[in-house]
Amino acid sequence: MRKYLLMAPGPTSLPPQVLLAMAKPVIHHRTDEFKAILKEVNEGLQHIFQTSNPVITFSASGTGAMEAAVVNTLSRGDRALVVRGGKFGERWGELCEAYGVEVMPLDVEWGRAVDPAAVASALKKNPDIKAVFTTLCETSTCVHNDIEAIGKAVASYPAILVVDAISGLCADDLKTDAWSVDVVVAGSQKGLMLPPGLSFASISAKAREAVKKSNLPKFYLSYDKALKSLAKTDTPFTSAVSLIYGLRESLALIRQEGLENVVKRHARLARATREAALALGLELLSKAPSNVATAIIMPAGMDADAVRKKLTRDFSITVAGGQDKLKGRIIRVAHLGYCEEADVITAISALEMVLRQLGHACEPGAGVAAAEKAFAHYHD
Amino acid sequence: MRKYLLMAPGPTSLPPQVLLAMAKPVIHHRTDEFKAILKEVNEGLQHIFQTSNPVITFSASGTGAMEAAVVNTLSRGDRALVVRGGKFGERWGELCEAYGVEVMPLDVEWGRAVDPAAVASALKKNPDIKAVFTTLCETSTCVHNDIEAIGKAVASYPAILVVDAISGLCADDLKTDAWSVDVVVAGSQKGLMLPPGLSFASISAKAREAVKKSNLPKFYLSYDKALKSLAKTDTPFTSAVSLIYGLRESLALIRQEGLENVVKRHARLARATREAALALGLELLSKAPSNVATAIIMPAGMDADAVRKKLTRDFSITVAGGQDKLKGRIIRVAHLGYCEEADVITAISALEMVLRQLGHACEPGAGVAAAEKAFAHYHD
Repeated sequence: MRKYLLMAPGPTSLPPQVLLAMAKPVIHHRTDEFKAILKEVNEGLQHIFQTSNPVITFSASGTGAMEAAVVNTLSRGDRALVVRGGKFGERWGELCEAYGVEVMPLDVEWGRAVDPAAVASALKKNPDIKAVFTTLCETSTCVHNDIEAIGKAVASYPAILVVDAISGLCADDLKTDAWSVDVVVAGSQKGLMLPPGLSFASISAKAREAVKKSNLPKFYLSYDKALKSLAKTDTPFTSAVSLIYGLRESLALIRQEGLENVVKRHARLARATREAALALGLELLSKAPSNVATAIIMPAGMDADAVRKKLTRDFSITVAGGQDKLKGRIIRVAHLGYCEEADVITAISALEMVLRQLGHACEPGAGVAAAEKAFAHYHD
Repeated sequence: MRKYLLMAPGPTSLPPQVLLAMAKPVIHHRTDEFKAILKEVNEGLQHIFQTSNPVITFSASGTGAMEAAVVNTLSRGDRALVVRGGKFGERWGELCEAYGVEVMPLDVEWGRAVDPAAVASALKKNPDIKAVFTTLCETSTCVHNDIEAIGKAVASYPAILVVDAISGLCADDLKTDAWSVDVVVAGSQKGLMLPPGLSFASISAKAREAVKKSNLPKFYLSYDKALKSLAKTDTPFTSAVSLIYGLRESLALIRQEGLENVVKRHARLARATREAALALGLELLSKAPSNVATAIIMPAGMDADAVRKKLTRDFSITVAGGQDKLKGRIIRVAHLGYCEEADVITAISALEMVLRQLGHACEPGAGVAAAEKAFAHYHD
């Protein structure tokens, strides 16, 4: 019997209240009783998306909702500006290409945030760009992009701004309406503290105009079908009833803590993790760190995947590794969703022990001490 | 406090074992532990699909897997023969049209099964047809199509046979390989006794050849991505971990009872429901009844939706109504998934009481008596 600690940037561990909510008997999805649940959930989603735009729910993982953003707002041959600073930025590009949308890449060094001025300049040079695709947290590098500034850059152009907030929502602040974000895509298995299987999209009036012009083929992922049903507090296809039960519970938990406090908690855990890593003589990958997860570069010559394996085998802790060109070089410690100080301390302490066993010279407790100091800053 | 009886053809009620399996802590989807679960589940799916073909799992409702069957096997301008004898046959047509596939409709009177000879004759006249789309159980009319005979008709042509078994799987027998079915699409919230949110597709070698030629756009629903991952006991996108836990449990329950016995149980419940309806002086819609659900025509002048409302209000029982042109005319009593004799008796007894209250002349207990006699036939 081991206590399992899941500290990857999705799926994340779930509050027991959410797990048990999903164990309730399934009811039919076209009943008044279920409609009342949908109503509560739809309003709760608008609250955490910080928007008065409609927020639709897909029974699909995050990539499904990313695909929906492409096929519902664009047409074959349209040009899209795609910020590529990691694996998920690249996925926007792949999705556009799969549907014959012309990708104008805005490539950013992995580990750095996109410069909002570069977005503005690309739009100035190419005012025919129909959409700008970027990420709130680029999960592969743990970089946080400045969506507020990007929103300002895009707002005066005809292009819509589409933000992948799949991992970022609830961890990094995202003021959808105040920052003029047209489509926000999110997933269930991250800050929302649910299992994988649901994804979401908020859709602005500007994006709804784009939907009217889009001619790419779609059916299951159709915004039009979803928005028409949403207006009647319904869904075009059968709702994933059990996951919706869980969503109602997790939204209630977030409201109870307060969305602002939830984001602050993530910021606190992220800062402590960064300071711990630095105190252990390690380097951070991200020059613009997200609150979702911390990408830590392993000491030269040490295989990051060996570190992860020992964390799992000896301490029953799952952290993520590097993807693509970062494979074997970094670990990504998430502090996401149902996560608090104790989890970060546990993970850092285990990391210290593993690093020392693998030959990295660091003082036992040095990382934990740095994390405690970081927490103290907030608990004055 | 009321005991809730869900007798609609999806979602269906769930065994407590499945509900509780889904309440287990979420683990990371790229771990050896989860891989072992996927392996068990993939093999279990092949067992209930009665196939040695790979069976892939989508985090999506059944319509997502229907869309996948179209976009992965066809190209723009291809011709497809679409059997339309109800709402779900029509959906095949809508999906094809959304992607520029030319639909050759084979229209069948609602309530009747398609004549396999008509399929053969259409293929003979149009040997360039690339795919035949039909349903095992056409849920909107509760009609069972003779897939064995249709399989024989299609096998000698280049066309692939695609069967929507979303509601039918586990209730109506489906020998995928023996009957030469190339793609079988199924959903989680039916005979599989799971919540909505997963869907499945088995893909034959003939269908995999079609996949190579298909040029319709796809990404999230790509067979190619899913098959490549499946070969490594993995998934291209994040698995719906909790639903997979539930799936493992439900597959184990089905194996325990024996797939053949599961189908026999559905046949037994269906026959009893039909005989009860006839004993109450009611007519059945389906001339080729499925084991999934029984479509009962309400007495002339009686609103079927009023019957359903009273069943819900007075007896906490959900049955389905008619769709499109059948709205208000029929009720559909499902005997699907986690369902047994007691549930059918309860539903019939409640139906008797409601019908009498609404003015239909029938003897109290007449339906129940007929059902008991039907059951006795099996319990000799």
